[in-house]
Amino acid sequence: MIIKIKHEASEVQIEQLKNWIKSQGLSIYFSEGEHNSILGLIGDTSQVDESLINALEIVENVVRIQEPYKKVNRKFHPEDTVITLENGTKIGGGNFVIMAGPCSVETEEQVIETAKHVKASGANVLRGGAFKPRSSPYSFQGLGAKGIEILLKAKEVTGLPIVTEIMEPKQIIYFEHVDIIQVGARNMQNFELLKVLGAVDKPILLKRGLSATYEELLMSAEYIMAGGNSEVMLCERGIRTFEKATRNTFDVTAIPYLKSVTHLPIIADPSHAAGMHKMVKPLSLAATAAGVDGLLIEVHNDPERALCDGPQSLKPEKFDDTAKAIFKIREILSEV
Amino acid sequence: MIIKIKHEASEVQIEQLKNWIKSQGLSIYFSEGEHNSILGLIGDTSQVDESLINALEIVENVVRIQEPYKKVNRKFHPEDTVITLENGTKIGGGNFVIMAGPCSVETEEQVIETAKHVKASGANVLRGGAFKPRSSPYSFQGLGAKGIEILLKAKEVTGLPIVTEIMEPKQIIYFEHVDIIQVGARNMQNFELLKVLGAVDKPILLKRGLSATYEELLMSAEYIMAGGNSEVMLCERGIRTFEKATRNTFDVTAIPYLKSVTHLPIIADPSHAAGMHKMVKPLSLAATAAGVDGLLIEVHNDPERALCDGPQSLKPEKFDDTAKAIFKIREILSEV
Amino acid sequence: MIIKIKHEASEVQIEQLKNWIKSQGLSIYFSEGEHNSILGLIGDTSQVDESLINALEIVENVVRIQEPYKKVNRKFHPEDTVITLENGTKIGGGNFVIMAGPCSVETEEQVIETAKHVKASGANVLRGGAFKPRSSPYSFQGLGAKGIEILLKAKEVTGLPIVTEIMEPKQIIYFEHVDIIQVGARNMQNFELLKVLGAVDKPILLKRGLSATYEELLMSAEYIMAGGNSEVMLCERGIRTFEKATRNTFDVTAIPYLKSVTHLPIIADPSHAAGMHKMVKPLSLAATAAGVDGLLIEVHNDPERALCDGPQSLKPEKFDDTAKAIFKIREILSEV
Amino acid sequence: MIIKIKHEASEVQIEQLKNWIKSQGLSIYFSEGEHNSILGLIGDTSQVDESLINALEIVENVVRIQEPYKKVNRKFHPEDTVITLENGTKIGGGNFVIMAGPCSVETEEQVIETAKHVKASGANVLRGGAFKPRSSPYSFQGLGAKGIEILLKAKEVTGLPIVTEIMEPKQIIYFEHVDIIQVGARNMQNFELLKVLGAVDKPILLKRGLSATYEELLMSAEYIMAGGNSEVMLCERGIRTFEKATRNTFDVTAIPYLKSVTHLPIIADPSHAAGMHKMVKPLSLAATAAGVDGLLIEVHNDPERALCDGPQSLKPEKFDDTAKAIFKIREILSEV
Repeated sequence: MIIKIKHEASEVQIEQLKNWIKSQGLSIYFSEGEHNSILGLIGDTSQVDESLINALEIVENVVRIQEPYKKVNRKFHPEDTVITLENGTKIGGGNFVIMAGPCSVETEEQVIETAKHVKASGANVLRGGAFKPRSSPYSFQGLGAKGIEILLKAKEVTGLPIVTEIMEPKQIIYFEHVDIIQVGARNMQNFELLKVLGAVDKPILLKRGLSATYEELLMSAEYIMAGGNSEVMLCERGIRTFEKATRNTFDVTAIPYLKSVTHLPIIADPSHAAGMHKMVKPLSLAATAAGVDGLLIEVHNDPERALCDGPQSLKPEKFDDTAKAIFKIREILSEV
Repeated sequence: MIIKIKHEASEVQIEQLKNWIKSQGLSIYFSEGEHNSILGLIGDTSQVDESLINALEIVENVVRIQEPYKKVNRKFHPEDTVITLENGTKIGGGNFVIMAGPCSVETEEQVIETAKHVKASGANVLRGGAFKPRSSPYSFQGLGAKGIEILLKAKEVTGLPIVTEIMEPKQIIYFEHVDIIQVGARNMQNFELLKVLGAVDKPILLKRGLSATYEELLMSAEYIMAGGNSEVMLCERGIRTFEKATRNTFDVTAIPYLKSVTHLPIIADPSHAAGMHKMVKPLSLAATAAGVDGLLIEVHNDPERALCDGPQSLKPEKFDDTAKAIFKIREILSEV
Repeated sequence: MIIKIKHEASEVQIEQLKNWIKSQGLSIYFSEGEHNSILGLIGDTSQVDESLINALEIVENVVRIQEPYKKVNRKFHPEDTVITLENGTKIGGGNFVIMAGPCSVETEEQVIETAKHVKASGANVLRGGAFKPRSSPYSFQGLGAKGIEILLKAKEVTGLPIVTEIMEPKQIIYFEHVDIIQVGARNMQNFELLKVLGAVDKPILLKRGLSATYEELLMSAEYIMAGGNSEVMLCERGIRTFEKATRNTFDVTAIPYLKSVTHLPIIADPSHAAGMHKMVKPLSLAATAAGVDGLLIEVHNDPERALCDGPQSLKPEKFDDTAKAIFKIREILSEV
Repeated sequence: MIIKIKHEASEVQIEQLKNWIKSQGLSIYFSEGEHNSILGLIGDTSQVDESLINALEIVENVVRIQEPYKKVNRKFHPEDTVITLENGTKIGGGNFVIMAGPCSVETEEQVIETAKHVKASGANVLRGGAFKPRSSPYSFQGLGAKGIEILLKAKEVTGLPIVTEIMEPKQIIYFEHVDIIQVGARNMQNFELLKVLGAVDKPILLKRGLSATYEELLMSAEYIMAGGNSEVMLCERGIRTFEKATRNTFDVTAIPYLKSVTHLPIIADPSHAAGMHKMVKPLSLAATAAGVDGLLIEVHNDPERALCDGPQSLKPEKFDDTAKAIFKIREILSEV
């Protein structure tokens, strides 16, 4: 951590700051310049509160050199984390996964039929929304606990592990037999929820917030890991930018970037990223080519009648075609 | 709502869509063009799900003409909402309020001392953080329920109503004697929390999310009002943009814009907007001149030792100077 | 075009507006609602000035239904544009191109050596910067005309067509033997330059501005085409967002999106997008998998000594490895 | 400048880097850590090319501590720059200016009439667009040189100095009698134009680019000052963000922020910022309250018939009312 001291700071003030830094168990390098002086903090600064230092009147600004995250940091854990689901499906460390299914769970028939289709096309996890975050109070809010029951029925029938979203701590009671708990983009910094998930013994799929930086996404994963749960996947699902022709801007660079700084598996959600079904195939292929560990794809046996988020759902035949192309790219990646 | 139909749509498909629209109780205007046809929906479309229509293969895109919010809409409720606190303090409809106090509640002495100072300078509500959303699991997480007790003590001593933040539904039990419940930017779309607050009989101060549009902010207020609680204030606190020299970009236009489309009081938080105490005064004056109904300002009796968010806290003397300038601008506004 | 009329508009005012619209050769559909009335404009509205209508006091807002661009619009020109360079190299319509070379032209030796390398690896166009846009007046500004001479020497030696950037109209005299003229991101809306390029008989590579929407990029291409030059390629090179870990955010969705709305070839620049050489390979593969028509890749025979933009340059060996992987993905795409 | 060295760097590589740094006339501080080593550069680093260093394989990243701009930096020039126009009007250093007039120059009558109106309301500079940057090739492109003649006629009649926009270097011949040359947002990084303006003996009004950071704006001013012209004003005119309800997001914080880091006068353009005339008054008051040195306001004697950018133009009576309120706030500011 580098602290830039204002020109007008008195020696006494600088001395007080130095003493405080030393009291935190850190060493100091001090360099006096004509217009500014620099204080370099040496040691583990991951728990030093930048804003506290920034608050001092003698400080012009503070630059962090060391990452503020530890448990998710690849520097301290160079090997890839591999998550193994109950049925043996592995995610990360070279194991590729496709999680597919309807945006919203509506009926048992719809979910089971879709599950069979996606399994036949090569998906290894079934996704589906039971608790639904909707920006309008007048939109369909999901089937809730009943939706999870339907997903579990589909799991029983097809053998596919399931992933579904949690929206608040007290819903955790419904997730006992869910294989992967998803945290939606709008809840990425719902810290109370993250704390609860840190105490759970289940893999978590953490979606990047609409305007969350890589560092904030990693810090939210750090919350879960700090709570004791080390099975976290990060999911790029598009960010909010000035471009409005697509619902979000899919940040494909997040895939190789995050893989370079963390050991956690990286998943991509091409369905939500653009919000248009005709973009799902090219974005799936792009994410795969960029080295992603898995994809989350919306498939609906009748997208024209889906109750929510229909625009980005693929039909089973289109999903099959997309999956085939994805697998071909995966094959090449192992060669190149 | 205007639906742009693709050139290749068949007559049968268009007919099906028209029938569905009519089944929703809406009338239709249809215009056939060379490259696209247009379907106009006439009637109350506020509860029509855009994405559902967008999902149809024959649809190129959908444009909403009518606002999706009703209860917060000034069109249906032209007069300003005026919120009256227990002690008679009014907010909105020409009544100006300053909510001031420490970012984090630390000690009884700190809070009471600060409360006395801000009251003397003209503040009419005491603010202070008890439950604190922090992006790092390693940062101080606030005193929680104990912090609210301290705030209530300060309320008793000074007579100032208090505003403090809630982070999850189950914390509601601690808010019985709190005057205004604040929803933080990161929870603006925590829909489960909004639903709980819709059932509460207390004013809500709803902060705009980091990358929330005006419409999304209004829709979150609509959640609370749809639940039965009509005492909602909206708070502009800076948005996330490409500019990183300041922590956020204070969107001062939100003030006159929101006031033109909703009847709810608009509050501004100049402390969090820039994240630098030297910006608090100019931004407070700017917000006031732009017509805001109230300000939320961090004041700390010892900002150099604040446990969190110190950089944006003002010292009591600076707050006093800022408040004086704010009141002068308020005076002028009534004349111009 | 849909015009939303305010409730308070008088019949006389609405009548005046209707007459003006008819005077523009357009028909009108009028729908009166309880809170707003709607005026729909029927006919070719691509040359109607939205802002002019928006200016009227009785207008609440205006929504454009028809695209404002014509010549670049795939609706009016369904087949892909194929650009053929002097030496027969084709771009677009299924023809894939790699443009590679140094960011800055420095010495004849450097450029020729790099050109030979990239040709051997499969590149079919040589890129290199002669006139360099630099954000600091103190940075190296490029060799200018001398740099173009060096590129032409390399073209002579290797037979590779060349692409290089123009920065202002009067530089056009140096581009006589250049094969493709590049317009940089910062000049995407330098309309005087675009007008000059509209009168040139050479292919133009138009880079997307840092915060340009798809529509603005298309409108800038429309400027060139409206001037009479129909050989335009569009280049996605990363946009500016809140994320600062990478220099820009590579908007991979731009590739399939633009290809769906325009017939012009789409190129991607993975080197500038992230600004890190370790991201060039994954982003090149992602862009290829997303269906791009060509790539612009920085390669430097000695990136550690490059005078500018070094961080994103690949070494020849790495470029060779990247090109091999790109070609493998191209092969698959033809099958899937 | 702080260079973070990768763990895997060899001693030889680090030594080479140190030698290169010393060859630039800089001293070094070196600190070896467990996971990273840090190289601190001591001395004047404003002309060191960050990207060059970033290019080195052993470098993880580079952080600049010193600002890259010198001539515009308040640290090296603490007193405010005051610009004096030909007729004695002063800008900056406590001197407040209102530049008002039509967006587009259309007719002599229109401009002269508007000029008289705005002068009567207290404006001290006449603005008007002759060369117009338009995103569509089909929009009215301005009267060009003829428009400047009209402005000069209005100057003659009213005595008001004039400000108008230049779009490319060769237009400079028309600006001989123009008092202030404006550079539009889209040309903020048209470096060839900035170089030409650096050689001119006239004040420049430099508008912030749509997505330009404060630092980039300051660097563009540095280009002009480095060329020898020290009379530069910076203009905040709204930035591009995710919010689309307003045309741009007016970044009011830019005013106090820029004033703290540069000695140049800061102007605000509330007309373009929001793109709605009803926002012009509140934004003008907000900018004034935030301490701006001047305002650029569009006024049109007949905004309902303006050929361009009509939505944000005020009518003369509304401008008069706005100006009165602005002056009242200016009065208060001198007291508070």
